[in-house]
Parts: sequence; structure tokens; C-alpha cells
Amino acid sequence: MTAEIVSVGTELLLGQIVDTHAPLMARILAECGIGCTHRATVGDNMDRLVATLKQALGRADVVVTIGGLGPTVDDLTRDGIAIALDDTLEEVPEVAHKLRAFFESRGVQMTHSNLKQALKPTCAELIDNPNGTAPGLICQKGGKAVLALPGPKGEFDPMAQGPVRQFLEQLQGGQVIHSRVLRIIGLGESLVEERVRDLMDGENPTVAPYAQTAECHLRVTARAADREAAELMIDPVVDEIRNRIGNHLYGFNETTIEMATLDLLVERGETVSVAESMTGGALGARITSVPGSSKAFRGGVIVYTVDAKQTLLGIDSGLLTEFGPVSEETAKAMAETVRERLGSTYGVAITGNAGPTADVDGKPVGLAYIAVAGPDGVTVDKAQYRGLREDIQRRATQTALSQLRWKLLSDA
Amino acid sequence: MTAEIVSVGTELLLGQIVDTHAPLMARILAECGIGCTHRATVGDNMDRLVATLKQALGRADVVVTIGGLGPTVDDLTRDGIAIALDDTLEEVPEVAHKLRAFFESRGVQMTHSNLKQALKPTCAELIDNPNGTAPGLICQKGGKAVLALPGPKGEFDPMAQGPVRQFLEQLQGGQVIHSRVLRIIGLGESLVEERVRDLMDGENPTVAPYAQTAECHLRVTARAADREAAELMIDPVVDEIRNRIGNHLYGFNETTIEMATLDLLVERGETVSVAESMTGGALGARITSVPGSSKAFRGGVIVYTVDAKQTLLGIDSGLLTEFGPVSEETAKAMAETVRERLGSTYGVAITGNAGPTADVDGKPVGLAYIAVAGPDGVTVDKAQYRGLREDIQRRATQTALSQLRWKLLSDA
Repeated sequence: MTAEIVSVGTELLLGQIVDTHAPLMARILAECGIGCTHRATVGDNMDRLVATLKQALGRADVVVTIGGLGPTVDDLTRDGIAIALDDTLEEVPEVAHKLRAFFESRGVQMTHSNLKQALKPTCAELIDNPNGTAPGLICQKGGKAVLALPGPKGEFDPMAQGPVRQFLEQLQGGQVIHSRVLRIIGLGESLVEERVRDLMDGENPTVAPYAQTAECHLRVTARAADREAAELMIDPVVDEIRNRIGNHLYGFNETTIEMATLDLLVERGETVSVAESMTGGALGARITSVPGSSKAFRGGVIVYTVDAKQTLLGIDSGLLTEFGPVSEETAKAMAETVRERLGSTYGVAITGNAGPTADVDGKPVGLAYIAVAGPDGVTVDKAQYRGLREDIQRRATQTALSQLRWKLLSDA
Repeated sequence: MTAEIVSVGTELLLGQIVDTHAPLMARILAECGIGCTHRATVGDNMDRLVATLKQALGRADVVVTIGGLGPTVDDLTRDGIAIALDDTLEEVPEVAHKLRAFFESRGVQMTHSNLKQALKPTCAELIDNPNGTAPGLICQKGGKAVLALPGPKGEFDPMAQGPVRQFLEQLQGGQVIHSRVLRIIGLGESLVEERVRDLMDGENPTVAPYAQTAECHLRVTARAADREAAELMIDPVVDEIRNRIGNHLYGFNETTIEMATLDLLVERGETVSVAESMTGGALGARITSVPGSSKAFRGGVIVYTVDAKQTLLGIDSGLLTEFGPVSEETAKAMAETVRERLGSTYGVAITGNAGPTADVDGKPVGLAYIAVAGPDGVTVDKAQYRGLREDIQRRATQTALSQLRWKLLSDA
């Protein structure tokens, strides 16, 4: 069984945005054991869209379209699929009703063009879209399937990972290619590769490294009759990798370092609070991006100025003058004070210079101090990051989470 | 003149890496005034590569290939182009010589397959590659041009931005396509479209809307002899859009709402601080992602728990009990208190429920109160967001920045 992906949108064709949906869809197809042989990108142009869809349908069993399901005149995918499949569109009364109710509930008048989203090719089943107004489509006709997914990331991702994956697995019903991603922190890609080099020669499962921002991933992939059989083949390889990597392996698949660290805290019934200077709230934002983080996160302070460090944390002005806001001493005081004020088990502090220029004390761009205070005292790491402001801020929060995790593991 | 881009590589087709080269190439084509009508991705498979190249050559004047020029058996682009153009390959002695010298200088024995990189279609000119071993190709035959660029980023980017852009500019003979993006907040895509519908029928400049998370973009694009002439054609269209959209138009091109709002504050010598509950620091993080934000941002508190709201802001426990942490009253108190504590001109507060479940008071997922306190008092907005946790948090910070901006504009 083969598939093709067609991404629709002039903004993609002109390179104004990078297409990350098509790679995700390609990975899902591969994991379902369906070979993807072509990918195409077309603009919001009906003739080219229809020609591309027809060509894809001429070659592949499954065609997945991404984007172009919205309400504007530029959104042509629904019509294009109907034409390519020699089908017609019909209105789905329930969807039209839902759309009207949605706009009414917001007190906004619905424009006529929004009703386009209630249309579907007659051969299509709808895919529910709890995160947006346009449902997805599964069109089956003449032994071919066309799946249409909406373009906004918050709508595309859950639909692709959920009902679309499920449909493809059923359709394929034979062999799956299944992966587990091992997430590793505190060891660079080349060190990781050195430790697992011989495992990378395996054919089934395969092992492949991917460098990420301030962490490294290993993807272990098995080909088997079903997902469970693949998991059983992956297990011993993961055990072997764990033997060699130890606690640097912090989680699997979609588990982020913030999730892994929060899990440890919740397991132990402990809590954390944060004091951020150079990251301006980004550490708190990463922690609270995890559902259920309120079980372990108490809150924190964004002490972006010297004044704020005094007002919100009562940090001694003598200390700030003597050592400067970007210093080991200030980081320690921030972590200890926020821990105390919020009554949390741990306090994590980040102070540094995210750039773009050296600070008033001449501290260079990328210099950061990251402190973790706990029941047994406080530790500080000094780091010198490279890159743009956003990279520096991202790396600082990554280090902070990693340091908190090491502290938790060593306190255990 | 039209062009198509063909990205070559099984790792792209399987979604193991995201293709950022094709978007860059598309932008360069657009800037040179060459319309890109199709993009395709094929794996390392000769039949499919040749078929895709032939189809592209049948439609477009220029075909740009990316990747597949290396020394391994998987690298098929050079051969594929020769077949598609009905040409043969010949060895370029100088390149073969350079390759041998390169390997000798590293003390590494050159494998025979490396010599592939010294081959070119007879119709091709070489593009020098100072950053790698495989030269690029410019093949011209039968009124068509095929440009072949190497895949590694360090080789692709300079070649695309340098000799390839130069060749395309000459080929096109002096026309550019230039765009300005208008960033609009507080008006949905369909309302924006309704107000500018007639302008969207224009041919030069063109006007096209793009929905973004909680904002909307209009792209105004002109075709002209050079960039300055294009800007002059875009100006009156932008003026007309501004007449219809008013202050909802907050910025151009790469200007984000956090930048636009910070600019207003800095202009007026005013400052802001934040009190965040459901967004856990994400508002502060957005503000401090902007270089120079320390000129107007004082800091804030992340009051993720009821305790933290009392400890860090001293919010009255009676108020919290009576109205609950997710309420208009709490939002107001948070904004007013943080403003006062940090001595900033404005205080912005977000409290709400980001999900995944209704909170202890039964407040539904997505409900949020956003307050802005200033010299003239405090205003609160109630919102009900949909989507995943990260969407809800993102929309809440977007509303907060937008509300702060309206306050600044109305206080002016």
C-alpha cells in the first residue's frame, strides 16, 4: 500500500512558512507501514490542486491533503477533492448548525463563507475536530482513500495522531514500523553515539541518534506484525541502552524534561517554585505547559530588574551591589528566597545575560548562573551559552530543569 | 517565467527531517520575480526522480533540485537530471583532480564512488562549492534550466543566496515580487476579509489573508522592476487597508504584538509588570523574548496557587474565597497589586483555567479573566478559549498583550 501527501497553500509554496505537518504525516504513514512515495506542495489554485490530486490518486492508494479547509475563498481543498474524485458536495446540517451555534455563542455574526465548512463530498465521512470549526474528511471511492486535514497546528496534530492514524492502521492491517524515542539529557550527541555505536549497526530494530536543543534523542525502530510485537523487540535494546546511558536517559517519546521532572516531584509529594531573571517567565511557562503541573508547582517571581529582586524577594542590596545581579551569589539568594517565600521543597533560580549586548557590569552575552535550593542546601551551575537570545533562554531553562532533576535523583 | 522545486531524499520523504531548504529557495525565486507553482519531494529512487523531473520540465521554465549530489549510491540527482534532459554525463578533470587532492590532504583514501562528484551532464556549467566536495550544476537545454544544489545546509545556503540567486536574477531580467505583511489583532479572519474583500480582487498588488493564532495577517504583494518600485505600489493599498481596519493593524512583517506593545511603552517612557496564574510565566516570557525589553518590563509574579496569590501579592483571602481564583475580582486585584508592588505604569494579570479539567470551583476549561491596571483604573476582559492547553495559554497571553496595547492607545 502506498500513500502520497499533498500540502495546500500559497504561503507554503512561496516559502513563507515551513511545512512541519507533512513530515509528521509522513512519519505516521511510515509507522503504519504505508510507504510514502511522493510529497507535493501546491498553492491555492484550483486547476493545479485538482491536477495534483488526480495524479496522486493515479499512483497511490491513499492521498492525504493538508490545509485549505477554512472559510475563505482561498480554501479550495474540499472542492478540489470533490472534483478529483468526480463527486459533488453536500451540506451536513449538523455541522452547519454547530457553526451557527459557535458564532452565536461568541456574539459574532457568521459570514456566509463560513458555511463552506459544512460541506463535504457525498462519499466522505467527517472527522470530528474538537479544536476548530472545519471537520476533517475521509473520502473513499473506487478503492482509493483521500484524507483531508485542516492546516492549523492545534487542529492538525491531534487529528493526525488520533483518528487518522487509527484509520490508516485499520486500512493497512498488516505490518507496522514502530519506534520508541529515548530522550537523553546532559550527554552530547557524539558521546551518546560513542556509547551505542555497535547498536547502530542493527537492522531490526534500528537505532539512530538525533541532536536536539540541549538534549539528544535515540530512535529505536522495529518492523513487526503489530505494535505490541514491535514493542517486545524494542524492549531489550532499550534495556541495553539504559545500561550504557544511565540516568541521562530521562524519558520516552513525547515525555519532555519538564514532564519527567514534574513526575518525580509528584511521586515524592514535593513542590518547586522559580525565580527568573534572564528567562522572564519561560521556566514557569515550560513547567505550567504540563497538564496537572499545579500538583507540584507553587509559582514564582520574574525579577527582571534589580528593583524587582529587592521588592519581590527582598534580596540584600549590598549583595547585589557587591556581586552584581548576574552572579553565583545572586542566583543562590534568589533560589533560597523564593523557596522560603513560597514554602516549596525546591527553589530554582536563573540569572544571566540573554543578550543582545553585554550588561551594565560587563557580563558577557550567554553567561548564566542556575541555582537549585533544596532541603540539603543550594547548588549553582555556571554556564556560557552560545546562539541567539531565544537559544540562550531556551538552554537556560533546559539546564534549570535538568539540574532540578539531578538534585531530585541524588536526594532520593 | 515559472519554476518548480524538487527536493530529493528518502529522509525527507519519511519525515525524518523537515525541509527548510525548499522554503528558502521558494523565497529566493519569489524575490527574483519567478513564480513557483509546484514543489515536490521524492525519495532516492531513480524512476520516480526522473518522472518527477520530466513532469516539472514539462510545466516550468526552471527546475531547482535540492540534495542527492553526494558520493553514495543513494545520491542519484546528477544521473537523474542527465536522463530527464536526454543528456549524458562526462567527467570534469579539474574536479576529479580537486577531489583527489582533498582526500590526500586529509590522509584518507578516496573511494571510487567519490569520483561521481566529478561528473556533470554535458550541457551543465558547474557552480563552485567552497564549503563541500560536490559542485552545483546549472544545466541549460531546450530553453529550460535545471539547477542542482547540494543538500547540506552549510553548502546549500551560500550557494542559493549567492550564485543561484544571481543566475535567476539575470535569467529573469529585472522584475521582483515583493511583499509586506500587515499584522492585525482583535478582528477574526472572516471579518478582516469582509472589510477588504474588494481589494483581494486586485492583480498587482495582490492582497491575501492568513489566519494565525489569535491574529490575522494580510499579505500585500507587488510585482515591479525593483523593490523600491514595489514598495511604492504597496503603500496606497496599505493606507486603504489601514482606513478600514484602523488600530487593529498593529505592525508589519516580523513585528510581533509583544514588540509593538513594548515599542509603545518605550516611546512613552512607561513600564509594565505582570501577574500570571494560568499562563505560568508565558506572558513574561513573550515580553522578555524581545531584545531590549528591560527598558519597559519590570518583572512580575507567577501566582499559580491560591497560597502564592496571598504570599506574593497579599491578595485578600476573603476575596479569593468569595469569588474564587478564576474571577473578575481576582484578576483586578492581581493587576492592581502587581502594578503597585513593582511601581510600574501598568499591571497586567491573567487568571483562568487552561485545563485539562474544570477547576475546584467548577470553572470550565478555557475560561479566563484578563485585567489591565493603569493610572486611570483597571479593566477586565472575560474570555472563553477553545483548544488544547497550549492554545489556551497562547491565546490568553495574546489577549493580554492586545488589551494592554488598546489601553495604551486609548490613554494616549
